[in-house]
Amino acid sequence: MTTLLHIDASARKNRSISRSLGESFKNQWLSANPEDKFIYRDVGSAPPDFISEDWIAAAFTQENERTDEQISLLRVSDLLIEELSQASVIIVSTPMYNYGMPASMKAWIDQVVRVNKTFTFDLNRGDSPLEPIMSDKSLVLLTSCGEFGFGESGTRKNMNHLGPHFRTISKYLGIDEVHEVNVEYQEFSDIRHKQSIEKAYESIPRVVKRVTTKLDSLA
Amino acid sequence: MTTLLHIDASARKNRSISRSLGESFKNQWLSANPEDKFIYRDVGSAPPDFISEDWIAAAFTQENERTDEQISLLRVSDLLIEELSQASVIIVSTPMYNYGMPASMKAWIDQVVRVNKTFTFDLNRGDSPLEPIMSDKSLVLLTSCGEFGFGESGTRKNMNHLGPHFRTISKYLGIDEVHEVNVEYQEFSDIRHKQSIEKAYESIPRVVKRVTTKLDSLA
Repeated sequence: MTTLLHIDASARKNRSISRSLGESFKNQWLSANPEDKFIYRDVGSAPPDFISEDWIAAAFTQENERTDEQISLLRVSDLLIEELSQASVIIVSTPMYNYGMPASMKAWIDQVVRVNKTFTFDLNRGDSPLEPIMSDKSLVLLTSCGEFGFGESGTRKNMNHLGPHFRTISKYLGIDEVHEVNVEYQEFSDIRHKQSIEKAYESIPRVVKRVTTKLDSLA
Repeated sequence: MTTLLHIDASARKNRSISRSLGESFKNQWLSANPEDKFIYRDVGSAPPDFISEDWIAAAFTQENERTDEQISLLRVSDLLIEELSQASVIIVSTPMYNYGMPASMKAWIDQVVRVNKTFTFDLNRGDSPLEPIMSDKSLVLLTSCGEFGFGESGTRKNMNHLGPHFRTISKYLGIDEVHEVNVEYQEFSDIRHKQSIEKAYESIPRVVKRVTTKLDSLA
């Protein structure tokens, strides 16, 4: 049995393309693997708190030296990290807001990337002192953008701070492979948008298959 | 008289390098231009709300058709946009959190980039339908990073989703020039960190001068 963590980040519950992509991925996964467990985290509807000065101090305090208040401050972080830790596959369905991830999604990242929980820090490692604690996870990133050309060969490649940011951070979440499915052209509502949606839905079964194959190879 | 908007984004009030850089910039600016007006917005200590489905609906409702509730939902956004609109120079002092801007800073961006307030949208413009409403602003981006090599020729260039993200979004805020001052190596606490801090403080007077020269040329 595999555990999957599905994170929705759209502020919209209605007519959200990224939410529909996530739903479709989940349904296709479950019909192929009905025993698998999905953990669901809706940061779009219920964003985690922003980290604060006290949160940072608590995170950098040794576990056995934390006050009750500090323990309480880290409770959301503990929960989100526990959810991540259980999952071999992370599905993030998110819109692009202002060329990056929604603030609510970044709030999740800021709560989850935490010393001695998701990464260790050791200056003996030289100029790359951070190492992830978790490993072997796959990220499926399902996105929706208003504009277009954010891909590797696109005209807005350098304006894409969503997928590339997730790829950078994924290492510290124990993710070693990233699959992206992107819908573009949303604000044009034209034939290109329709085709982009069709292409995205066509690629979902392929991603389901590739992630399943990877999980099988690890088993 | 010039109006400047200074935004602090560090969650830390104490020992924050980015806050110190912002403070230094402000002091140097005011000693050269004592008449100028500073607007201060501390998103690190008091983050703006995340945008919500109702917020989006309100933003896309014609101004004269908004309900009282919608008007109220946009009040923070109206205020932050008004602050931006007054300023010719925007100083953002921010740490890099997890290779990008803090969630609180992104919450500010998501509140401020708004149709018919900061940008217009017109499909008659073809494949680039968005145009900024404001213009001629300068952004001074003062950052602090734990690691290093995030510059143009650095080994972590592709992991930098802070400066490049600001450069992309700045166009929609009416910003036409960006000056960056970066402190790196914070988590190493070594001679390189000390040198990076020294270099950053040395460059602040140059940035003050360059922005002043630009303002003079616009006057």
